[in-house]
Amino acid sequence: MSRRPLLLHPERLFPPDPTTRGLAAELYNEVRSLPIVSPHGHTDPRWFADNRAFADPVSLLITPDHYLTRMLYSQGVALEELGVVPTDGTPVAPSRSAWRTFATHYHLFRATPSGLWFDHVLAEVFGIRYRLDAETADEIYDQVADALGRPEYLPRALLERFGIELLATTDSPLDDLDAHSRLAQDGLGRRIIPTFRPDPVVDPTFEGFSDNVDQLGELTGDDTRRWAGYLDALNNRREFFIRHGAVASDHGHPTATTANLASRDCQRLLDGATAGTLTADDLELFRGQLLVEMARMSIDDGLVMQLHPGSRRNHNALLYERFGRDRGADIPGPIEFTESLKALLDLVGNDPRLRLILFTLDETTFSRELAPLAGHYPSLLLGPPWWFLDSYEAMLRYRRTVTETAGFANTAGFNDDTRALLSIPARHDVSRRVDSAYLAELVSTHRLDLDDARELAVDLATRLARRAYRLDDRS
Amino acid sequence: MSRRPLLLHPERLFPPDPTTRGLAAELYNEVRSLPIVSPHGHTDPRWFADNRAFADPVSLLITPDHYLTRMLYSQGVALEELGVVPTDGTPVAPSRSAWRTFATHYHLFRATPSGLWFDHVLAEVFGIRYRLDAETADEIYDQVADALGRPEYLPRALLERFGIELLATTDSPLDDLDAHSRLAQDGLGRRIIPTFRPDPVVDPTFEGFSDNVDQLGELTGDDTRRWAGYLDALNNRREFFIRHGAVASDHGHPTATTANLASRDCQRLLDGATAGTLTADDLELFRGQLLVEMARMSIDDGLVMQLHPGSRRNHNALLYERFGRDRGADIPGPIEFTESLKALLDLVGNDPRLRLILFTLDETTFSRELAPLAGHYPSLLLGPPWWFLDSYEAMLRYRRTVTETAGFANTAGFNDDTRALLSIPARHDVSRRVDSAYLAELVSTHRLDLDDARELAVDLATRLARRAYRLDDRS
Amino acid sequence: MSRRPLLLHPERLFPPDPTTRGLAAELYNEVRSLPIVSPHGHTDPRWFADNRAFADPVSLLITPDHYLTRMLYSQGVALEELGVVPTDGTPVAPSRSAWRTFATHYHLFRATPSGLWFDHVLAEVFGIRYRLDAETADEIYDQVADALGRPEYLPRALLERFGIELLATTDSPLDDLDAHSRLAQDGLGRRIIPTFRPDPVVDPTFEGFSDNVDQLGELTGDDTRRWAGYLDALNNRREFFIRHGAVASDHGHPTATTANLASRDCQRLLDGATAGTLTADDLELFRGQLLVEMARMSIDDGLVMQLHPGSRRNHNALLYERFGRDRGADIPGPIEFTESLKALLDLVGNDPRLRLILFTLDETTFSRELAPLAGHYPSLLLGPPWWFLDSYEAMLRYRRTVTETAGFANTAGFNDDTRALLSIPARHDVSRRVDSAYLAELVSTHRLDLDDARELAVDLATRLARRAYRLDDRS
Repeated sequence: MSRRPLLLHPERLFPPDPTTRGLAAELYNEVRSLPIVSPHGHTDPRWFADNRAFADPVSLLITPDHYLTRMLYSQGVALEELGVVPTDGTPVAPSRSAWRTFATHYHLFRATPSGLWFDHVLAEVFGIRYRLDAETADEIYDQVADALGRPEYLPRALLERFGIELLATTDSPLDDLDAHSRLAQDGLGRRIIPTFRPDPVVDPTFEGFSDNVDQLGELTGDDTRRWAGYLDALNNRREFFIRHGAVASDHGHPTATTANLASRDCQRLLDGATAGTLTADDLELFRGQLLVEMARMSIDDGLVMQLHPGSRRNHNALLYERFGRDRGADIPGPIEFTESLKALLDLVGNDPRLRLILFTLDETTFSRELAPLAGHYPSLLLGPPWWFLDSYEAMLRYRRTVTETAGFANTAGFNDDTRALLSIPARHDVSRRVDSAYLAELVSTHRLDLDDARELAVDLATRLARRAYRLDDRS
Repeated sequence: MSRRPLLLHPERLFPPDPTTRGLAAELYNEVRSLPIVSPHGHTDPRWFADNRAFADPVSLLITPDHYLTRMLYSQGVALEELGVVPTDGTPVAPSRSAWRTFATHYHLFRATPSGLWFDHVLAEVFGIRYRLDAETADEIYDQVADALGRPEYLPRALLERFGIELLATTDSPLDDLDAHSRLAQDGLGRRIIPTFRPDPVVDPTFEGFSDNVDQLGELTGDDTRRWAGYLDALNNRREFFIRHGAVASDHGHPTATTANLASRDCQRLLDGATAGTLTADDLELFRGQLLVEMARMSIDDGLVMQLHPGSRRNHNALLYERFGRDRGADIPGPIEFTESLKALLDLVGNDPRLRLILFTLDETTFSRELAPLAGHYPSLLLGPPWWFLDSYEAMLRYRRTVTETAGFANTAGFNDDTRALLSIPARHDVSRRVDSAYLAELVSTHRLDLDDARELAVDLATRLARRAYRLDDRS
Repeated sequence: MSRRPLLLHPERLFPPDPTTRGLAAELYNEVRSLPIVSPHGHTDPRWFADNRAFADPVSLLITPDHYLTRMLYSQGVALEELGVVPTDGTPVAPSRSAWRTFATHYHLFRATPSGLWFDHVLAEVFGIRYRLDAETADEIYDQVADALGRPEYLPRALLERFGIELLATTDSPLDDLDAHSRLAQDGLGRRIIPTFRPDPVVDPTFEGFSDNVDQLGELTGDDTRRWAGYLDALNNRREFFIRHGAVASDHGHPTATTANLASRDCQRLLDGATAGTLTADDLELFRGQLLVEMARMSIDDGLVMQLHPGSRRNHNALLYERFGRDRGADIPGPIEFTESLKALLDLVGNDPRLRLILFTLDETTFSRELAPLAGHYPSLLLGPPWWFLDSYEAMLRYRRTVTETAGFANTAGFNDDTRALLSIPARHDVSRRVDSAYLAELVSTHRLDLDDARELAVDLATRLARRAYRLDDRS
């Protein structure tokens, strides 16, 4: 076998019809170089605060990316062979060996977004000219490892090179946001911002929930075993996050259930939550009540709420036990919004000060519930298709099912939702290409004028995200 | 900013591929001028009975159309600013001001069916040559207002000009059908026909249900507090509607549940319904039992049944309280047909005298349940995609998911389902264009011969609707 | 009316865009003549064991094919008119008359896969040159009937002519597999193989379940009224099937529920199942427990498990009573996998010795649950779209929703799932054409290189099926 060239075709992801392809290329050219706005992501703020060189290709590009590891795991490759370290610290394959294993199985990613992104990273970030496979594995490993040692691959240099205007991280309410403080000292405080993700203190099934609630109280000086004190403490931490630049909170519940209970019931649920005695129904109620409380707080403090229900976390019991959270075994299930959100919407859904961005992993809700809801309630916006749906086909399905009912203005722009820093430009590039392709389709079927398409291309690439997260409103 | 021309491209909605586009244009040309058959709609029969000029552009084109008002509301525009009057009669924005507000936000409708329809109305019905926006708002308002005062814009003139062969309205069983009587006297009785929509007397959650049931009894002389008398009264009103030209009944239930209970249970449910004491489960049973009763009556009197479950009516509590029904806050949810319809189908599903047309707002049911059901039971037909699904993309999805299992003959043709009279030609035009596009796709991928496509284009435009509603069987 | 030519266009099912069409044609040419691998089907093994001429066109081509009979039934044609014999043996329309009825309604199949397949059978298998309709009915009947009497239309000759490398049948665990024994004696034992389908002895709602369980015990000498003996007996029959060439078991449950109960509970459920006293919930548990038992047995004996939940069997009570099972009234409903499979996956989902192929009739599960599950668990593969989804549009939807998350390697290749022997080449041809069209789309949008597409075309046509069913591992 000889080495095969790695080429990123300039017209990739554009429609085959020549007229429509020409339109797509024209629209894409207007947005390809716009800055990157990334209001929802999972990179580590310490990378940028410390600005140290990344350790090696595998721990940067492969092990943290469960899209990559899950695919090889599904074909019988143990996570240890890919360098993923179990919670008990058992030694695993060294970096080069893990890279070889990955390269040998890289054909599994043909026609997947992961493959598109990874090729983009290799070609555009590292200048690799050959496709990754068993034969080229070592050569490419060396090139990447070598590059990582150079100054232009330090985290802040990449931030600059990628044109990232804003990057949000995701942080525990118990975090001291030290990295963000240090970034602020270096003048990066408005560019890399935290996001308030309260799972550890609002999800009673989270590891150490009860201790977390106590720790929350210690941080704020509130009595978090009392409902009022618990809410005060959450409020305090939200303020703390806002002082560190946060513009949004992030809520990853199993369902979209919301509840509006009497405070006596709330105290009872809190007692049960910290005691670990809540039934499944009460767990739902507790989380649902907290969504309503967060919505109320949002009205006061202006944090944008993001809600993404529907994933069954840590579905694979064996992997969860061995490797812990976020190892790729979060599996979606059916989800319902219309009834579930009613308690919240009845209370605050018509309040223009609330902004609630809804995400889903269940595409059936796009045309059935989410577009009708977002196309009606002033407080609601639709987030982009993401996670398994952050892909060429799913993005097109999203636009085709959502736009006719909700228009463009009720959507929240793109976000990359990733901990894979180097893939951020690739992900925004795919999104801009697909949106250009969709707009080109609208133009070539005479559902949209070209001048409107030009304007909308920029909206979809940057303006809607800035508007959704109120980035331009920041003092 | 200068005025931008409003152009309806002659090839709009046709596929981009030149060969397929040519086929679509050829098929469309055969159906574009066929008469309009509108067996399900919500125009006001008094418009035609009185034949008076429409009052003004806003009350004709905007305030009754919740597709339009909901979009602006979702972006923070109060309904009052659009001229929608609250139930308490509080004064609202005058017509011209509401029109300006609408025009200023008209860009929200880019790439939506509402935008397509509204452009069509402006261009084709009123001869407007410029796109609606803040700059052109007043000028277009004047042109439209001026036109409405002219004889050729009187309701009956429009009926003629639009080529409407049949127009069904939707009427309460308590209605005296006076407008339809007057239409009959003027020779329009077979052209504008009522539809029996029994919600006020069969849905216990309807405002004033108990009084309505009593009023029903007064109209027919039956004891509607007894189950047998209640059914007799419904039967009597159906006959009354049939004498006034009705060919169909219309049933908008929350779910598709059907039930076949003993008459003792039926009496118990009726007692609870009029007393307002039914549980949620019993409400379901009551409505489900009535579907079965209506099916039985259909077998006898020949009214075609239309069932469209799945919408959560008046979802927005605040708007419902302030403005009442039908203000755009009906939000769909998941729906199930296979199990739900079994009670009805076990009883009468194989009876060729029954015709039951099923509609959905939950697209997941197209391939999973509705096409398999309609492709098997002789009593069932599928209605067109409508409401949020009455759009280019959703129509294509409908054809692509339904046809392979149910064929064309098990579908019921198009209907416009609208109270927006002036948009009726636009809606049928969109439908004919999309069906032509779909048939052209079939031909260009050699799944259908062109001669068959020609025949099917006419079926989809008019013949299937006439057949589904038995219009040609009328004496 | 004059006779219309029956032409199978060589580029049928290829995309309209000329470049993409050219690519599709190129890919299709590489796979069109590959052998047929059919690891899941419903032909009668006695046809091949006996190798007698088929009786007549209708009993071969029409009455066993519920895709055909259901469509005519939905349009008011009685099954008896099509030659379908009720269980009470009432005489029905003779063969030629049934054929005429079918021909007269053949236009109902325009743009359906049944129409594509039937045209293919007429043109390619019988050399018919005119389209089937009322006018050509008799002439075509005679041609087909005449052909069936010739040696080249004997079952084994067709097997050869069609290039069928492997054909799996579906068999009761109570079957003595006599036909398969005779095939083995004639050297066809590895080519036509049985499949272990245990419904009669694991589904308590199956006709005669209790007697079947006793009969199972008699066959194996186990006490099948005791849980341990019942499992032993199932194990014994699996071994019996394996000795006769079986490579897979087949499980058609109402839901995907799995359970892992204590053996005491299992005995209680078995007692209730044979007594006919299980509640609906316990029926679910019983079947769910058996799926787990079968998975455990699979790990030991290597049979590939196939699970296809979600069909409501015998939905039409009247037809079921009159004609029995499998008359086209199996209607899908919503289905859930993520929660339902957890009990099984927790136990054996990470075991590489288990292979579980999942099928669905509910397309919403493709992107939401099945692709994420199969793209993670090493034991899971996705079966092809089948039944109502074995069609051009549904196949494209399947590839577009599944590939981006699960890739190609987690799918199980195509199978024809049919009792209509003569349509097997047509079905594989459609599948190969659609997959070529899909791969061509990937290439023309630069998501896949042409060399990879060539390789994948062969994977999808034959290699993935061989691998999924471990056909190359057979000793």
